[in-house]
Amino acid sequence: MSSISGLGEDEVSSFFESSPPLKNKEGILEKLNGFIEHNSSGGRRIVCVTSGGTTVPLEQRCVRYIDNFSSGNRGAASTENFVKAGYAVVFLYRSGTCQPYCRSLPDDPFLDCFQFPDKTNIQVHASHVEAVKMAVMDQQAAVAESRLLKLPFTTIYEYLQMLRLIATALKDVGPCSMFYLAAAVSDFYVPWNTMTEHKIESGSGPLDIRLAQVPKMLSILRTTWAPKAFCISFKLETDSKILIEKATKALGKYKVHAVVANELSTRKEEVVVVSSSGNVVVRRDSDKPESIVEDNLIRLIVDRHSTYIKESHT
Amino acid sequence: MSSISGLGEDEVSSFFESSPPLKNKEGILEKLNGFIEHNSSGGRRIVCVTSGGTTVPLEQRCVRYIDNFSSGNRGAASTENFVKAGYAVVFLYRSGTCQPYCRSLPDDPFLDCFQFPDKTNIQVHASHVEAVKMAVMDQQAAVAESRLLKLPFTTIYEYLQMLRLIATALKDVGPCSMFYLAAAVSDFYVPWNTMTEHKIESGSGPLDIRLAQVPKMLSILRTTWAPKAFCISFKLETDSKILIEKATKALGKYKVHAVVANELSTRKEEVVVVSSSGNVVVRRDSDKPESIVEDNLIRLIVDRHSTYIKESHT
Repeated sequence: MSSISGLGEDEVSSFFESSPPLKNKEGILEKLNGFIEHNSSGGRRIVCVTSGGTTVPLEQRCVRYIDNFSSGNRGAASTENFVKAGYAVVFLYRSGTCQPYCRSLPDDPFLDCFQFPDKTNIQVHASHVEAVKMAVMDQQAAVAESRLLKLPFTTIYEYLQMLRLIATALKDVGPCSMFYLAAAVSDFYVPWNTMTEHKIESGSGPLDIRLAQVPKMLSILRTTWAPKAFCISFKLETDSKILIEKATKALGKYKVHAVVANELSTRKEEVVVVSSSGNVVVRRDSDKPESIVEDNLIRLIVDRHSTYIKESHT
Repeated sequence: MSSISGLGEDEVSSFFESSPPLKNKEGILEKLNGFIEHNSSGGRRIVCVTSGGTTVPLEQRCVRYIDNFSSGNRGAASTENFVKAGYAVVFLYRSGTCQPYCRSLPDDPFLDCFQFPDKTNIQVHASHVEAVKMAVMDQQAAVAESRLLKLPFTTIYEYLQMLRLIATALKDVGPCSMFYLAAAVSDFYVPWNTMTEHKIESGSGPLDIRLAQVPKMLSILRTTWAPKAFCISFKLETDSKILIEKATKALGKYKVHAVVANELSTRKEEVVVVSSSGNVVVRRDSDKPESIVEDNLIRLIVDRHSTYIKESHT
C-alpha cells in the first residue's frame, strides 16, 4: 500500500493484521468475482449495499459483545430499489437482519403465513399471499438472474475484511460501481490481541471496559481500495440539532459523493442527502400508504450516479 | 416485599424502579393469565422456558448496546421436548432468536424452501418438506392447543420485568410449575438513570465504560416470586476447568433444584446436570444423527420434576 499521510494507515494495517482471519475467503471471492464479471461484461452498474450493525466481541471465545442497533430495513429496501433501477447488488448484510423482498412478512412468518389444510399441500393465508410471493418469487428471480448476491457478516472484523475484498474486486468496474454504506459500523472496539480469552467473570464489582476507536476505513476505500467508485455514506444521530453539521463534516473529511443524514426517530419518514451541490430533503410520499423513503432516495442517488458516470467519461 | 437479608433487595428494588416501564403490560398479563388458567385447571404442568440473550443499552435512545451471544437453540429444542412430555410452555425468548419447531429450517428459508411454479400455487422443495411441515404444522398445533405461549423480549429491563410477571402469575400453580432458565442474562448493565440520552460521540479518543452488576434475580425468584416452583438454572463457561465448580457454587447460592452446566464448545454434545444428589453427564445419542442433547436432558429434568411434585405432596 502506498503511503497516505494523515489517514492513519498504521492503525488500518494493525487492525487488519490483528483481525482473526476471514473464514471461507476463497469461496466468497469466487462467488464475488463470478458475479462481478457476469454483470460488468453486460455493462450493468454494480452497487455494494451494506446493511445492519457490526458486533464488537469483548472476549475471544465470544459470549459478550457490543452491537449497533440496525434492523437492516434501509439496506433491504434500497437493494430492491437498486435492482428495480437496473443495478446488480452485492448485499453485504448482518446475519439475521431484514432481507430484500422480505420487509412485508410478519415477525413470525412460519406461525402466521402458512397452513397445511390436508397435511400434504401447503397454502398461504390470503392476508399474506402478496408478502410471501414477493419474498419467494421476486427474491429468487433477482438471485437467479445474478442481480443479487447476498454475503453475510457478524463481527466488525468480518465486515471490514469483506468490504475490502469487494472494493478491491470492484476496482476495475470504475465509475459504474457504487458503494452505498448503510451498515451501522461500530466506532469502538477491543483490539483482538488485547482481548481476554475467556468469559469475563462476574461477581467482583463493577466492570470497566476501555474501547479503542475503529480506524476510519472510508478514507482508504476512497483513496486506495476503489477510488473511482461512486460513494454514499450514512450518518445516524439521535440528536437532530447536530445531525446536518456532522453529515457535512463527514462529507468533507471522507470525500464521499453524498452523505445520507438520518435522525433515529424520523428516519422512516425523511432523510437529508448532503452533498457539495447542497442539501436535499427526501421524504416518502405520505399520500401513498405503501410508499417508503427509499423509493425516492434511490431515484435521486441513481440520477446522481448517472451524472457522475457521464462526467467521468468527459 | 418482606425483608430478605443478604439478597440485595435494595439493588433489586432500585433496578426495577429505574427501569423503563414495560410496554403493553396489560396485554401480556391477559394472555398469560388465560394461558395459565386454561392449563392449570386441566391439571397440566407449566414450564417457563427462557431463551436467547438479553441486551444492555448503552444509550437511552438506543443505538449501541452490549449483547450476550445465544442462538436460542437450547431453549427452542427444550420447548419442543417439554410439549412432547405433556407440559404447557411459556416461551420467553429474545426477538429474532431460534423458534421452537424451526431448528431444521435453512438460514434463508424464503430463498431456499419454496417455489411458485405456476405463479399461483406455492410448493416446498422436496429437501425441506419435513422442516417446513414441522415449523408450520407442529408449531401451529402447539399454539392452537394452548400448549405454547410465545412472549418476546429484547433488553434486560424487558426480560426481568416479564420474568417477574410470569413468576408471580405462576405462584398459585405451586410445585407443578417449573422455571427452566436457559436465557443468557447480562451480568453487567448501565443503570438507566446514569445513562447518556444521546448517541455516544466518537472521534475523541478511547471510550471508557463503567458497567454495574445486574442484581441476581434468581434468589428473589426462589424466595419470593415463586418459591414452590421447580427451578433449573444454567451456567455457561468457555473454560471447562472452572465450569463444574461455578455451577456447584450457583446451586448452593441460589438454592435452585439443578444447574445445567454447559461448556461453549461442547454444549451441543453434552451438558452436566449439577444437583444435590450428584452430577449427571447427559449426552446426545451419538449413534442417531438427528439426536440432540435436549432429548435426554428434558427426560431427566421431567423425571426430577415428577419426584419433586410427589415429595411436595407428602
